[in-house]
Amino acid sequence: MDEKYFTTRASFRHFSDKMIPESLLEKIIEKAMKAPTCGNMQLYSVIVTQDKTRKQQLAKEHFNQPAAVNAPVILTICADFNRFSRWCAINGANPGYDNFHSFIVALTDAVIFAQQITTIAEMEGLGTCYLGTVNYNAQNISSMLGLPELVVPVASLAIGYPEGPKEETERLPLEAVLHYEQYREDSDDDIENLFKIKTDFPANKEYVAANNAPTLAHIFTDIRYTKDMNEKVSESFKRLLSEKSFS
Amino acid sequence: MDEKYFTTRASFRHFSDKMIPESLLEKIIEKAMKAPTCGNMQLYSVIVTQDKTRKQQLAKEHFNQPAAVNAPVILTICADFNRFSRWCAINGANPGYDNFHSFIVALTDAVIFAQQITTIAEMEGLGTCYLGTVNYNAQNISSMLGLPELVVPVASLAIGYPEGPKEETERLPLEAVLHYEQYREDSDDDIENLFKIKTDFPANKEYVAANNAPTLAHIFTDIRYTKDMNEKVSESFKRLLSEKSFS
Repeated sequence: MDEKYFTTRASFRHFSDKMIPESLLEKIIEKAMKAPTCGNMQLYSVIVTQDKTRKQQLAKEHFNQPAAVNAPVILTICADFNRFSRWCAINGANPGYDNFHSFIVALTDAVIFAQQITTIAEMEGLGTCYLGTVNYNAQNISSMLGLPELVVPVASLAIGYPEGPKEETERLPLEAVLHYEQYREDSDDDIENLFKIKTDFPANKEYVAANNAPTLAHIFTDIRYTKDMNEKVSESFKRLLSEKSFS
Repeated sequence: MDEKYFTTRASFRHFSDKMIPESLLEKIIEKAMKAPTCGNMQLYSVIVTQDKTRKQQLAKEHFNQPAAVNAPVILTICADFNRFSRWCAINGANPGYDNFHSFIVALTDAVIFAQQITTIAEMEGLGTCYLGTVNYNAQNISSMLGLPELVVPVASLAIGYPEGPKEETERLPLEAVLHYEQYREDSDDDIENLFKIKTDFPANKEYVAANNAPTLAHIFTDIRYTKDMNEKVSESFKRLLSEKSFS
């Protein structure tokens, strides 16, 4: 195995203009289809957006964030129980996948598939970036891509040939996420210590200073992922699940 | 890159008795922590179950399926907004992550992390198998592992040294899951053709015959993933999300 790949990987937000050959894209996606999937049902689909005008429209639904604007291709990976349910019905069986649990199962399948695409693409020398905004305008994205019942977008990947240096990012220490046998609730002091690597990270310090924020935590709660926005997206995403018969 | 790994990988359900050295397990988990994560928040935790008695109890919550019973270790990967929210509160910021959207974000983070663990572990020569039953008894699993508020189990991995032959599995053809620019709704005949590789697959034919089922589709709708069961799990999982302040 490539010893260094996993420890040095990072997302890219800047890409060259070079298009990804369709043959390469298809090779990556076909390989990723060997990823684990619940009951071998393969409850996912991927929509390739590479037409320039459509890519621009889709980037707009992702708030024109740099990765979406710069990438030659956006992959929208969907939780998809439509294909499987249709196959059941065609065979005279009675599919029972129009419910919340089935959405969670298909979402899990789709994210496993998305991460497999990410790993294979990066190992092929491409750069990728998840667009965390996929849920924000999921209804518009769904209309734009013509998604039918039981199909919901759950992961968006900007993908292309990377340009510029790899962004260095810090991660929590292992002990922050690892628990043996039972979940260990850390003391306040321990939590502060675990996050020290983040608060001390130069790029984060600059970010806090530039925004005149009291602490790094306020950057998240007051600017990047606010309670108000999270609650609004909760409601609109629940509406989409209901429209797509997934709730 | 390892050209062959991705096209030949498969899950394992049988394992030798050999324990995984903690140093190897920790190396794999630490590497997987470089996986993509929303806003670098790392909204996941992993609980290692390797104590024999506890592993037996946990396997029971997974209906004693062979992979859970045979594996020396089960990893329960959780969507976790607890650690991050506590850090925000300790810093005087007001975390707003007790809602449905934040659950979906953390779930996505956790599944990406789980799949990165899977890939790295398999490349290290271990075998893995997702236990799709994680949602079925999520409430019991949550109690057993002592999960606090804003922490919900979302992916379970049986993991160990593989024993016996690799299971061959079939996959849909590429065109089943790949769409350019817009979702393409296939005709009934096309759907039947796409699934032909499954209906013709020898192990599936045996499964249908052994169960005296009309078609392979009925195996899924009437035996493996029934409407009744899916609806029950939907309700119990929604209750858990509510108890953990995620709805």
